[in-house]
Amino acid sequence: MIYFDNSATTKPFPEVVDSFVKVSSEFFGNPSSIHRLGVEAESLLAQARKQIGELLQVNPREVYFTSGGTESNNLAIKGTALMYRNRGKHIITSAVEHASVREAFQQLKELGFRITVVPVDTEGRVSISDIEDAICHDTILVSIMHVNNEVGTIQPIKEIGNMLKGYSKILFHVDYVQGVGKVALDIQRYHIDLCSISAHKFHGLKGTGVLVVREGVQISPLFSGGNQEWKLRSGTENVAGAVSMAKALRLTLQSYKTKLSQISEVQSYLLKELQALEDIVIHTPSKGQAPHIINFSVKGFRGEVFVHALEEKGLIVSTTSACSSKKKAISHTLLAMNVSKEVAESAIRMSLSYENTLEEASKAVSIIQTTATELREVMH
Amino acid sequence: MIYFDNSATTKPFPEVVDSFVKVSSEFFGNPSSIHRLGVEAESLLAQARKQIGELLQVNPREVYFTSGGTESNNLAIKGTALMYRNRGKHIITSAVEHASVREAFQQLKELGFRITVVPVDTEGRVSISDIEDAICHDTILVSIMHVNNEVGTIQPIKEIGNMLKGYSKILFHVDYVQGVGKVALDIQRYHIDLCSISAHKFHGLKGTGVLVVREGVQISPLFSGGNQEWKLRSGTENVAGAVSMAKALRLTLQSYKTKLSQISEVQSYLLKELQALEDIVIHTPSKGQAPHIINFSVKGFRGEVFVHALEEKGLIVSTTSACSSKKKAISHTLLAMNVSKEVAESAIRMSLSYENTLEEASKAVSIIQTTATELREVMH
Repeated sequence: MIYFDNSATTKPFPEVVDSFVKVSSEFFGNPSSIHRLGVEAESLLAQARKQIGELLQVNPREVYFTSGGTESNNLAIKGTALMYRNRGKHIITSAVEHASVREAFQQLKELGFRITVVPVDTEGRVSISDIEDAICHDTILVSIMHVNNEVGTIQPIKEIGNMLKGYSKILFHVDYVQGVGKVALDIQRYHIDLCSISAHKFHGLKGTGVLVVREGVQISPLFSGGNQEWKLRSGTENVAGAVSMAKALRLTLQSYKTKLSQISEVQSYLLKELQALEDIVIHTPSKGQAPHIINFSVKGFRGEVFVHALEEKGLIVSTTSACSSKKKAISHTLLAMNVSKEVAESAIRMSLSYENTLEEASKAVSIIQTTATELREVMH
Repeated sequence: MIYFDNSATTKPFPEVVDSFVKVSSEFFGNPSSIHRLGVEAESLLAQARKQIGELLQVNPREVYFTSGGTESNNLAIKGTALMYRNRGKHIITSAVEHASVREAFQQLKELGFRITVVPVDTEGRVSISDIEDAICHDTILVSIMHVNNEVGTIQPIKEIGNMLKGYSKILFHVDYVQGVGKVALDIQRYHIDLCSISAHKFHGLKGTGVLVVREGVQISPLFSGGNQEWKLRSGTENVAGAVSMAKALRLTLQSYKTKLSQISEVQSYLLKELQALEDIVIHTPSKGQAPHIINFSVKGFRGEVFVHALEEKGLIVSTTSACSSKKKAISHTLLAMNVSKEVAESAIRMSLSYENTLEEASKAVSIIQTTATELREVMH
């Protein structure tokens, strides 16, 4: 089996699972308890927070543990809206965000917020001036993703952050879920106020994530209660999850340092070889893209049909983001990039991890080619 | 070490950790993915949901996976408020709820909801007529816990449910977190609309919980996004967490069937022996209480001091709920029960699991007695 669906989820590193087991079994105390077992658990949690802070180059105090990317995005967006609803009711996002950002905005719209969805160009990239033009006197939030989860386009986060620096009343949220360990993001220097990550996208465990909240930034909690995570996210902390996430992040950033050229090489190979195939349209831009996502359409076949046909030959890919793949809606990202409905319906996403090799890529191309030929024969 | 702080958190069963490891490592697919790995993960999730549904005697379709008790409580309460804010702005709870219910109510109060907090008697029990008297034309929610987490009082959930049956526009939420596996609750027959449970309270893993939402009941999501959990709780599902929670629940309910008399015996022993000690006040009622919680004050010592002194002798207990233990506020539950501030400040909570024995209980009593004597000597 060739697993090229790493943007949907990754296989956890064995060391990550081991950490989880060790902490769950041996340090099961509630971090809020005042006795030794609580203190031990709290200390492990603090250590995980410190490690993650260092790895993300933020203050550990800015690391808030959540249950994953969707929670982080919802907390950032709704927490801002709830906190500053009296200051302003206007929020800005892009046309190519993950469902958890898009739907959070829609929910706020129903609650009386005005939303602006800025368009993207044919490569799926927002324009800084479009964002600036959208800003009103009562704008309180701009939420733009870092790496697009469907096509891999990198957004100009640095430039948006720089521009937003001039607007002190607007918070800047970045969905960093797909970028972690693949494309560097300097949260501090790019003036990002809120930044979401999800461990299962980098060989960590499902149910664990982080929202970075820059010091001085205040948002309202979605979960109130025991005041854990400095009152921003109450609930008994998933200590084993946090410790294992710190390990996954460390290992992933090690791979980033040592294997970035390898993953880029695999991607380049795939883009080049696919380009040469008949009736294929590549949607992933060839510049300013993350190294792990390749999105393309094989014209004439519905993506779903093609995904299943590839699976039968041992190649695991997806049509779009996992979160959207059962809705059977046409990719909003591709439509926003001005891809025709027909071509968008054929879209396939391959997403790599640092574990994937050129050999797998070569096999994948050959499987794609054979599958396309066979399907064409069946259809004629 | 004698661990008598099981209401703060429990040690996960080894089988539960094993399940988590197996699913995380071997079935790591994203349940939303349409390929085989996704289908496998989805099928495990469905199986866990079915098992939990059967164990809780509800329809599996009514089981919504969350990150724990705090999320479940917040989702139930805020989700109801958000959904029915145009129907009514009045919500009712009791004076002895867990922080995650109490604070969710406070947050809604700040957002313009009217809240009624019904009092309790000296045993910590609400009165059905107080709740009914509090109902207004615009009441949309009543939230009452099942077993009080600090003193163990069982609330008259059946009777409240019966009374609320007459009010079709009011949802009934029950925080069942402390009752699971200790005191039976018939969610369906008691007309409960929303019911929260948390796995780490019954030897499951932190970061996993359930909100039961009865069929036909609609509430708004806190997390929007990929529409997982029938749109009520978006986000990639923690499949391994759900599977391991199902196992923890099954094992716990087995213990309930076979070891209930043992835990009750340990509790009776503790209550009787403690009662006989000098200057001790027992707060846990001797009738209508859960079998695992014993709350008492040793007059003259701050609870915190006593907890640390007991810990030095190998007995792990707590002052109050873990979630509140760092706030150093006096127990709101005890104050609501009309316990004096002075006595409430001395409160100690011991909480048992089915693993605890009479032998441990006997040692614990002796440790408590010695500690009290020693501390009295130090202070005089």
